[in-house]
Amino acid sequence: MTVNRAWLLARRPQGRVSISDFAYREEPFVPQVLAEGEVLVRNHLFSCAPTIRNWLNQPGNSYRSAIGIGQPVAGMAGAEVIASCHPHFSAGDLITAVSPWQDYAVLTPDRAAVPIVAIPDGLTLADALGPYSPNSLTAFFGMIDVGRAAAGDTVLISGAAGSVGAVACQIARIRGCRVVAIAGGPDKCTWLRDVARVDATIDYKEEDLAARIAELCPERVNLFFDNVGGVVLQAAVDAMAVHGRIVLCGQISAYDTGQPAPGPRDMMKLVYGRILMQGFVVGDFAARYDEAYTALRLWIERGDIMCRIDLRKGFERLPEAFVDLFRGNSEGTLLVSTASAEG
Amino acid sequence: MTVNRAWLLARRPQGRVSISDFAYREEPFVPQVLAEGEVLVRNHLFSCAPTIRNWLNQPGNSYRSAIGIGQPVAGMAGAEVIASCHPHFSAGDLITAVSPWQDYAVLTPDRAAVPIVAIPDGLTLADALGPYSPNSLTAFFGMIDVGRAAAGDTVLISGAAGSVGAVACQIARIRGCRVVAIAGGPDKCTWLRDVARVDATIDYKEEDLAARIAELCPERVNLFFDNVGGVVLQAAVDAMAVHGRIVLCGQISAYDTGQPAPGPRDMMKLVYGRILMQGFVVGDFAARYDEAYTALRLWIERGDIMCRIDLRKGFERLPEAFVDLFRGNSEGTLLVSTASAEG
Repeated sequence: MTVNRAWLLARRPQGRVSISDFAYREEPFVPQVLAEGEVLVRNHLFSCAPTIRNWLNQPGNSYRSAIGIGQPVAGMAGAEVIASCHPHFSAGDLITAVSPWQDYAVLTPDRAAVPIVAIPDGLTLADALGPYSPNSLTAFFGMIDVGRAAAGDTVLISGAAGSVGAVACQIARIRGCRVVAIAGGPDKCTWLRDVARVDATIDYKEEDLAARIAELCPERVNLFFDNVGGVVLQAAVDAMAVHGRIVLCGQISAYDTGQPAPGPRDMMKLVYGRILMQGFVVGDFAARYDEAYTALRLWIERGDIMCRIDLRKGFERLPEAFVDLFRGNSEGTLLVSTASAEG
Repeated sequence: MTVNRAWLLARRPQGRVSISDFAYREEPFVPQVLAEGEVLVRNHLFSCAPTIRNWLNQPGNSYRSAIGIGQPVAGMAGAEVIASCHPHFSAGDLITAVSPWQDYAVLTPDRAAVPIVAIPDGLTLADALGPYSPNSLTAFFGMIDVGRAAAGDTVLISGAAGSVGAVACQIARIRGCRVVAIAGGPDKCTWLRDVARVDATIDYKEEDLAARIAELCPERVNLFFDNVGGVVLQAAVDAMAVHGRIVLCGQISAYDTGQPAPGPRDMMKLVYGRILMQGFVVGDFAARYDEAYTALRLWIERGDIMCRIDLRKGFERLPEAFVDLFRGNSEGTLLVSTASAEG
């Protein structure tokens, strides 16, 4: 008998997410008849992305529908199509999709809030959730299209060692920007300087954010790419150059607090500074993913973009890995394979 | 002997501005030799604009330098050039400029934060500070260039009966938008509906803002033109359509509180909603003022844009009029002539 393992939402996290917010379930896997437009997938690899935290909250606060109590948690996955009743997908296809935290799942591509994407030829699932992940696409379109990063700009990036942030840093560097990266802890900062080759780093856990931004950005900040929000967003708003742009990619500092992410204290700084603030989601750029893949491939093959994968093995470790993300205990893009180390 | 009357900043307002924050002074007017680049003007008409309130605060919080204690307050004025050492200005020219609250003042056009503009032929000073004022230009560039108001958009405007707001409403209407105007009190709302011909009004003093926005904007808000900030900004953020734009023109609700204007409560609404928020100042469009004047003139002559002027007579009434602005006790663009009713 084939088992379908699942991690369910046991309760809505109150403030900080913890392992006990999740419940493990095993059920026999009984293949069902697919309806028109459905595909059956086997999930091999899950990406622990901060945004999942928002889906655990009460309905009505997120882009995607909230996950119900007792329902499987969902997240970006690398999966193999087992059977398909959708004209664009066939058995054997490798895809990325937002999929339930289960071994097997039925997906409906035409109703997916995040596009289900076939993995380009020659890439592995780990490639597709690592250097070519939706997070890299987010960095690509966020930095180039939304942020319009241009040579000579001073670009400040928060959450810079994260999956989106690290790629955003390197794209800004490739485009000729001066890149100042904010991350937590000396290990992440060293990686950003030595491997991602940013111009400077700020360890927000050890250093005075406002003072260091002022020191490292004497001409102020032309573009702030924000994954964090809260006090980091405020420090950046205070340091923006006239006509500066703020790309709102995420606000991870608030996700695990149970509180909404607060806006800047003084909106007149945005008026007098002629500041643009723009939120975005990568799915809006789905029609242009190929363009991003082509550019990313070139940069990755040349070594211009380096990715750091924190690969953990075993479906049973999924909640633990997810919780680590909010404790700063991950080292790069956090992936969990459904197969165990022994498997 | 000619007298030069002045209104000085007696002390920085603590919270709400009051008449006792200003001090009256009379001095003999002694014409001085102008330095290269200076012009001597006689101010005839002052516009009481909310932004002046920000200049009364501690230095460092505004676009323009703060006004020093004991120094003349400054504001947009309609003035006549008496003598000029600047190649672009001649005695007899009528101009608009940010000028001290005095009868006579020496200005330096090349160092002015707000461009000094010659009044187009055929316009009076009241025209230049009313329908053709910098406030109208602010509405023009804010609505068209920054906000990109397009036919079919639902446009929400706060401070809609104010000098900027009223023109912004009418430009949105001319461009084929559905216009919902927020103002305080039945008189302003009636004027907006009957004269400015907006589609609907919300009296924020009497009505539940969020409920009325939801009722009047069933397709949500494509463009919010914000002069007010605070709770009004929050209500609008909660009602924005996906890909909506928020034009940050001013935040009058905070000017008179002694506190910075707070940002929205939940920045994730901006991320998931792909919301653009853009601050701007009209001076950045100075090279294109002629384009705006041409369009405004056409619309005003056709009766497509109506302006409501609250003209008060007497230099001595300047602080009183200014304070009225923050009590909602003005009816349209608030102008104060330096000549008295008897004069």
